[in-house]
Amino acid sequence: MIRFENDYAEGAHPRILQRLIDTNEEQSPGYGMDEHCAKAREYIRKACDRENADVHFLVGGTQTNTTIISSILRPHQGAVAAITGHIADHETGAIEATGHKVLTLPSDNGKIKAGQVKELYDAHWNDAAHEHMVQPGLVYISHPTENGTTYSKSELEELSKVCRECDLPLFIDGARLGYGLVSEGSDLSLADLAKLCDVFYIGGTKLGAMFGEAVVIMNDHLKKDFRYMIKQKGGMLAKGRLLGIQFETLFEDSLYYDISKHAVEMAMMIREAFVDKGYSLRYDSKTNQQFPILPHEVLSKLGEKYSFSYWGKVDDGKSVVRFCTSWATKKENVERLIEDIRNL
Amino acid sequence: MIRFENDYAEGAHPRILQRLIDTNEEQSPGYGMDEHCAKAREYIRKACDRENADVHFLVGGTQTNTTIISSILRPHQGAVAAITGHIADHETGAIEATGHKVLTLPSDNGKIKAGQVKELYDAHWNDAAHEHMVQPGLVYISHPTENGTTYSKSELEELSKVCRECDLPLFIDGARLGYGLVSEGSDLSLADLAKLCDVFYIGGTKLGAMFGEAVVIMNDHLKKDFRYMIKQKGGMLAKGRLLGIQFETLFEDSLYYDISKHAVEMAMMIREAFVDKGYSLRYDSKTNQQFPILPHEVLSKLGEKYSFSYWGKVDDGKSVVRFCTSWATKKENVERLIEDIRNL
Amino acid sequence: MIRFENDYAEGAHPRILQRLIDTNEEQSPGYGMDEHCAKAREYIRKACDRENADVHFLVGGTQTNTTIISSILRPHQGAVAAITGHIADHETGAIEATGHKVLTLPSDNGKIKAGQVKELYDAHWNDAAHEHMVQPGLVYISHPTENGTTYSKSELEELSKVCRECDLPLFIDGARLGYGLVSEGSDLSLADLAKLCDVFYIGGTKLGAMFGEAVVIMNDHLKKDFRYMIKQKGGMLAKGRLLGIQFETLFEDSLYYDISKHAVEMAMMIREAFVDKGYSLRYDSKTNQQFPILPHEVLSKLGEKYSFSYWGKVDDGKSVVRFCTSWATKKENVERLIEDIRNL
Amino acid sequence: MIRFENDYAEGAHPRILQRLIDTNEEQSPGYGMDEHCAKAREYIRKACDRENADVHFLVGGTQTNTTIISSILRPHQGAVAAITGHIADHETGAIEATGHKVLTLPSDNGKIKAGQVKELYDAHWNDAAHEHMVQPGLVYISHPTENGTTYSKSELEELSKVCRECDLPLFIDGARLGYGLVSEGSDLSLADLAKLCDVFYIGGTKLGAMFGEAVVIMNDHLKKDFRYMIKQKGGMLAKGRLLGIQFETLFEDSLYYDISKHAVEMAMMIREAFVDKGYSLRYDSKTNQQFPILPHEVLSKLGEKYSFSYWGKVDDGKSVVRFCTSWATKKENVERLIEDIRNL
Repeated sequence: MIRFENDYAEGAHPRILQRLIDTNEEQSPGYGMDEHCAKAREYIRKACDRENADVHFLVGGTQTNTTIISSILRPHQGAVAAITGHIADHETGAIEATGHKVLTLPSDNGKIKAGQVKELYDAHWNDAAHEHMVQPGLVYISHPTENGTTYSKSELEELSKVCRECDLPLFIDGARLGYGLVSEGSDLSLADLAKLCDVFYIGGTKLGAMFGEAVVIMNDHLKKDFRYMIKQKGGMLAKGRLLGIQFETLFEDSLYYDISKHAVEMAMMIREAFVDKGYSLRYDSKTNQQFPILPHEVLSKLGEKYSFSYWGKVDDGKSVVRFCTSWATKKENVERLIEDIRNL
Repeated sequence: MIRFENDYAEGAHPRILQRLIDTNEEQSPGYGMDEHCAKAREYIRKACDRENADVHFLVGGTQTNTTIISSILRPHQGAVAAITGHIADHETGAIEATGHKVLTLPSDNGKIKAGQVKELYDAHWNDAAHEHMVQPGLVYISHPTENGTTYSKSELEELSKVCRECDLPLFIDGARLGYGLVSEGSDLSLADLAKLCDVFYIGGTKLGAMFGEAVVIMNDHLKKDFRYMIKQKGGMLAKGRLLGIQFETLFEDSLYYDISKHAVEMAMMIREAFVDKGYSLRYDSKTNQQFPILPHEVLSKLGEKYSFSYWGKVDDGKSVVRFCTSWATKKENVERLIEDIRNL
Repeated sequence: MIRFENDYAEGAHPRILQRLIDTNEEQSPGYGMDEHCAKAREYIRKACDRENADVHFLVGGTQTNTTIISSILRPHQGAVAAITGHIADHETGAIEATGHKVLTLPSDNGKIKAGQVKELYDAHWNDAAHEHMVQPGLVYISHPTENGTTYSKSELEELSKVCRECDLPLFIDGARLGYGLVSEGSDLSLADLAKLCDVFYIGGTKLGAMFGEAVVIMNDHLKKDFRYMIKQKGGMLAKGRLLGIQFETLFEDSLYYDISKHAVEMAMMIREAFVDKGYSLRYDSKTNQQFPILPHEVLSKLGEKYSFSYWGKVDDGKSVVRFCTSWATKKENVERLIEDIRNL
Repeated sequence: MIRFENDYAEGAHPRILQRLIDTNEEQSPGYGMDEHCAKAREYIRKACDRENADVHFLVGGTQTNTTIISSILRPHQGAVAAITGHIADHETGAIEATGHKVLTLPSDNGKIKAGQVKELYDAHWNDAAHEHMVQPGLVYISHPTENGTTYSKSELEELSKVCRECDLPLFIDGARLGYGLVSEGSDLSLADLAKLCDVFYIGGTKLGAMFGEAVVIMNDHLKKDFRYMIKQKGGMLAKGRLLGIQFETLFEDSLYYDISKHAVEMAMMIREAFVDKGYSLRYDSKTNQQFPILPHEVLSKLGEKYSFSYWGKVDDGKSVVRFCTSWATKKENVERLIEDIRNL
């Protein structure tokens, strides 16, 4: 069975693994106060072109979203998100468990528009009974989205503008950030993100690290006491240096981008094969996740050799599925898949 | 200005006020352990035809909903409700503040159907990733709904059946319960409710009491330690006997129903006047809230003499508004309003 | 049975009851937006000599404490309180239920000292692992305390000074505030409180009102969105004007103080009787609660005619009990009690 | 600088590291549904002699404590713990953040006694106002404790008996479990723990793993839906197999015990050296943490070459510090330390 079901099926990128081996017997202070974390912070600040950014390392995505969001909101506030957003649908109510409603906006492709945020904001404040409703307190987007789509620079600029007008911090979930940054036609850099949002995180788990997410806080008001929040929410790794070592390796040179490019190239090959064969795609993804709409007999056939994940039913004959690539996706496996698609 | 904007514009029904006066200098133990509460519990158990029901008195509706729901759910569970449900939309995220998501079902008229609950339940358990999603943990309905509509006995029986099959406690928010029970064509009694749901509350604030809601718990599993929950959630009134006295008065004879009938009669007169004049109604309400769709010039005109509440825009020329009646609505005021509607 | 067990055994002071009767049929907007609330706010601001204070009305004490504290703290912060404080011990974990630890300080008589707060604050910030501990976020005191004791002006000034130095908002629980303000030797006024703390509340439930507490917020940073918090925590009474009417009556003239004085006079008569008879007092209370240490046979004897509340065992032969007075305590009943104490 | 400041200064035990290397390119399903986790579960069940135990893998200790405790308690319940317990003092209020109070018992050496639990339980239920107080809902102990001390089998049996009589689940925090199991004089096995408590966890982070804790649930009532809780609290690692691989390695043979024995031997050598030199120990620890009381000039001297952690001041001249050992502690470093102690 060749696995395309997710982007975390393997361990760590060989260079990261090697660095973990090389440093294994080093002795470091705990909780992220070591030199590897310091170095990694420095590299990330540089990559973001922001000397004053606060950088923190956490273990996983749900934990990171929960820690950031609950750190920002007051009790009567909620997080605005696309209805497809990870926090709205796939974190077992982690945000609600910290006391906050997720205020969802409709979305077909995972993205939300500046106009939608403005409208929700105005609707809240114009309602005579607004004190009886959850106040929008921040805006959450994912880039790329859960559907593989990405924001353009101008879309993000508009969103950022509206958020600042409405005094709503903008938080970008970058669990798969690299794949978005290197995708075809993307005009966004880390420095743009750092300029346009208040806080974001750079995903490691799905991009070469064994595990780990790097939180980057730009907005000074959101920096205070963030380490307390990490500890309380269970994200402060005792051996914090493990996270530092991994992000140090990813950002000391272009490794993070190289990994991302490889995965995206593999995904585009798969995409092309499906399109060439006449299948349509549920979302127009230029990143490492592809969502072909396939007849059930095709799914059975491909399912004999490949694992992929079920996304949703289209009609009695067809469903959407997801194929994922990553740093570990082997070109020969992709070629075999393409061959099999051609021969369907 | 004659007020039809809500059903809590005045104080208490004269008989309740008199009883509060008569008992004012009595000395009682606190926190609902007094004889008036005991008496009121007895009357309510009798009205429900359930000797083993647990009855508790709280001050207001949001508090009651929060206390009941957070008492039932485990941390990973949510409350299923219509998207129009009070807990979904008008309690400033009180349910989320106790850690729980409200899982909303679409509804045009405020009601949800047994089939919708079954579908949501099945969708959850059939999803391979269900552990990453909030588990449905109870079903919340309001009767009458926030839109004035009511469930028929057969509708409630179906809902109850599905809930029991799915092991989902059914909770009925009865903030305006009396108005539903006496409404034209209603075939539901308190005893039916007690048989078909696991817990419900009998609204007092909007039905003659100065304030107060009576929680009735039928399901033995939900009874344990409920008084701790009332205290923690701020609903345990020091002078609990004030609540006992009020419900004692409402249920020692037919007062609760008499009050409800008067209000519904007044509402039906208003409804008829709008219909006769050719205006349509947004919801088919047979209870004390009426929702006519009116041209903006009519709203301006009526707004000179009467207060009512704004519900939502229909189009550039028309909006839905709400007219409410209560125990305190004076027939002569209704007649003046009707006269003014006729003369529009 | 003559009840001295608490200060909420009766209904409302006759003048308040009369006002509720007089206004019963008035129609008002809901949720505290009515003219009675406006008037009551004005009177209270005047009594506090602070035109810019925000004044809100809630129903009960636990609810008020929870709403205020959870409105102020960030998730990693706790409320500093005496170990005897109501929030530490007698609210079923209501503060923890909103996510916050109560950081307790030892206290024999219910009071805490400025030095204790400073020490706890320094200990936190000097601990290398402070991020692994709950950060002190505000200071809670009660005046009078749960033990009937009171702060002097100089004690409160010191506490206030330390709190401001440490950037810790100071919150005073005034569930029995009046009894403290009028107690013998007290040199504190409402205006002093308003100057020295950031937020406090004026208890109504235990001082003549049927129910109700008036929150007074002085610190501008704590004012924002407080009404959202009241709604979410279940404290926003639909018929908010009931609270306005009661505080209007209490503060339109000297009623609040008159009630307090009567109760304290009655309590001091009881105190004197016990002392004259040779019994000692557990706390040196000059307010409406008295805590004699009595032999068990005396408790049995007095218990035949009077109710009082059990406070704690001293040794095999003696226990502390509490006698409370209120606006409703009748002088003839106190005289009978005194007579019976003399005849022990 | 030679580090004795904690037991997580290095990476992973070489055998674990090797296994991570060997399996790095394997493809597995996510979230702990892989074969390594299955194998590790099997080994642990066998080690506990309990075929029906549920075994889950989480990343870190605070997260594990929070997930277990919030999974068990109802909202009005609290966790009983020693005042020195990790959850009481060093997790930034993580338990309170899920809504629950930690009910602390005094302890000098980190342990609590069966009698203390019984007394607290009785005091709660005998208090007339118990509904106004947090109800004890489970008992938390750590073994070894934060102070290095351990429970004997008979002590644990008594505690277990009381907990079962009081219907209080007993939870053992085993962050350093191995060090306790192999300590001199210990008569407790994993099978004993499994029999005597309801849920416990086997620490990996401090005992050879790169990171990871294995939760073992024996009580059937506590098993339901635990994976939802792990996900919600941020502990469900995407690459769950990393945890499986580590615990598989630790428990496929005696590695877990071998690691523990080495660390304890090293610690006992350090202990002996201090005692021989005439210094006393703050706690009588037979495990990997040692707490000598040392004059400040000795601390300065030793601090030039060795890192250790500060524990608390004894008097103006002396303080308690902590020396920790682990799998990674090198014998030659311990011998150098001992030499330096002798030469003091």
